[in-house]
Amino acid sequence: MKNYILQNENGVYFECGYSCDNVIYLSLSGDNYFITDGRYAIEAKLYAKNCEVLISNDLLKSARKILKKSKIKKLHIDPHDFSLFTFQKLQENLAIKFVQKPNFSKLKRIIKSDHEIEYLKKAMCLGRDGFEKFAFYIQKQGLGKSEKNLFFKAKQFLSFDGEYDLSFDPIVAINQNSAKPHALPTKDTLQKDDLLLVDAGLKYKRYCSDRTCTSALNKNINFSRDQVFKTKLEQKVYDTVRLAQEKAISKARVGMKASKIDSIAREVIDKAGFGKYFVHSTGHGVGLDIHEYPVISQRSHTIIEESMVFTIEPGIYLSEQFGVRIEDTVVMKNKKAQIL
Amino acid sequence: MKNYILQNENGVYFECGYSCDNVIYLSLSGDNYFITDGRYAIEAKLYAKNCEVLISNDLLKSARKILKKSKIKKLHIDPHDFSLFTFQKLQENLAIKFVQKPNFSKLKRIIKSDHEIEYLKKAMCLGRDGFEKFAFYIQKQGLGKSEKNLFFKAKQFLSFDGEYDLSFDPIVAINQNSAKPHALPTKDTLQKDDLLLVDAGLKYKRYCSDRTCTSALNKNINFSRDQVFKTKLEQKVYDTVRLAQEKAISKARVGMKASKIDSIAREVIDKAGFGKYFVHSTGHGVGLDIHEYPVISQRSHTIIEESMVFTIEPGIYLSEQFGVRIEDTVVMKNKKAQIL
Repeated sequence: MKNYILQNENGVYFECGYSCDNVIYLSLSGDNYFITDGRYAIEAKLYAKNCEVLISNDLLKSARKILKKSKIKKLHIDPHDFSLFTFQKLQENLAIKFVQKPNFSKLKRIIKSDHEIEYLKKAMCLGRDGFEKFAFYIQKQGLGKSEKNLFFKAKQFLSFDGEYDLSFDPIVAINQNSAKPHALPTKDTLQKDDLLLVDAGLKYKRYCSDRTCTSALNKNINFSRDQVFKTKLEQKVYDTVRLAQEKAISKARVGMKASKIDSIAREVIDKAGFGKYFVHSTGHGVGLDIHEYPVISQRSHTIIEESMVFTIEPGIYLSEQFGVRIEDTVVMKNKKAQIL
Repeated sequence: MKNYILQNENGVYFECGYSCDNVIYLSLSGDNYFITDGRYAIEAKLYAKNCEVLISNDLLKSARKILKKSKIKKLHIDPHDFSLFTFQKLQENLAIKFVQKPNFSKLKRIIKSDHEIEYLKKAMCLGRDGFEKFAFYIQKQGLGKSEKNLFFKAKQFLSFDGEYDLSFDPIVAINQNSAKPHALPTKDTLQKDDLLLVDAGLKYKRYCSDRTCTSALNKNINFSRDQVFKTKLEQKVYDTVRLAQEKAISKARVGMKASKIDSIAREVIDKAGFGKYFVHSTGHGVGLDIHEYPVISQRSHTIIEESMVFTIEPGIYLSEQFGVRIEDTVVMKNKKAQIL
């Protein structure tokens, strides 16, 4: 794709190694322009690679000026990336055809480079450390704490006291609250033998980690895969989700359709009789954005390739009882899925 | 305005007291609809007031269905609030005229209610506590710490260890870095007699605080107005900004044009010979969003009214030397500006 315009922060970062919250990036017949305002002048000139940095009080006006001067006839634009307002202003009276390419930047980012995989691995490692510290805290002081409290603590541990940005607000849900895939924290308090679901991640050099664990609250609470729950139903559901997740990871192959990976997980859950309680898709790509390509769902025809990075996160949600989700992020290496 | 559609999280929250990151809100001849997905079903039904909550796998499809059924002919939409993609999908083949009203939700929110002012006051109070703890930390352990380190600490103190969300990423800038109005933290370390600029805020029940202090690093470093700097130039610039800020606050009146408040601050700085170094406007509204109306700038014709809340934040930036900004958030009460 030759001529395109971007303003999404992660999309622009991918192009030139620098980004900020007020930028228009143009790539026109191989000439690249990073247009931002004076606040970011020094950093942009220092860090943005392979592009000319232009400082402007009116980014749109400057972009239009460059477009007018250029001899291009077609410009690719992601209709998700521009508001109706900005799009209208941008193309007003320009003799250029705007060709809409939904998600073109995310599609460019579907295969990760070695250094991206390294950053993602580091993010996942830090994420595991954060989970471990959180488990230690719960062991020592968790009993009787509210979900809200635990939510704040999860943010603290996962961000290493604010050193790292979070990939998203963590989910910390006890018992019946874990049955809502995106629970908000309540005043419910943590008690012995409770089921606890934690979904959290952080960013390392802008790359996201993502992980979910479901654990039983006993003396040695931890976020490992081996969990012993109080009720038979909890244990059955947990073991089913675990089997589904592990099978999907071990059977995923380069060359497979993404929908096939979803099916591998889904069949295990179906067979155990919980099919209708697995209400979301099996996974999603992870990178600069927490939700990227490939989508691992029944409807996804994407062919899995080497160096793709995505989550495998089947779940079973029994309304008003409890929910279980187990999630890891994997990279395709040597044709197989490796947990990052 | 009778018929409108919204999806901005703060805009929707203002309408019904609840919001989430996947919602379409419709107000049609007084009937209101909150359309979201299953993840938010329980919370939405519990907290969203004066509206019917609809759960959907495809929010746009559901919104279109309601619009088709309704007898409305015109629908107001904020072109900033919808991406080109969503707008196109939304209006496809509908016999409804979409009338664009830029920023209509923010304009509705320009006058704050008593409970909004209470929340904003609480946010500012917490913000001041956070600044105080940060000052105490710097007194005890700040010398030799890098801007990056101080930035993480500012996030920690301002968020009360993660209990509150931040209004924005804090700015913590030493000496020449403070000359960039939106500095990123560097590895420069804090030394005796340095000039330190801190701009930070947090959210209380979704309402933002915003404050900037410029301080001299001496034994009793604090974020009060009385500061003694090492160089005469620093002191002159500081005293000028302080005078400009205090004059703008004390002279602001209900009935005045917003541009007049900007002029009061700007004239002080002009007279002292620093006019061309005051490179931004004097202030902005604060509420659910960190940047709301009124804008306090030369170009703003808004008439100041009772219960408006906005910042007063003049600054002088001497490139490669240092910058000074002093910012408070005020509410118009009894026709005058009170610091919140």
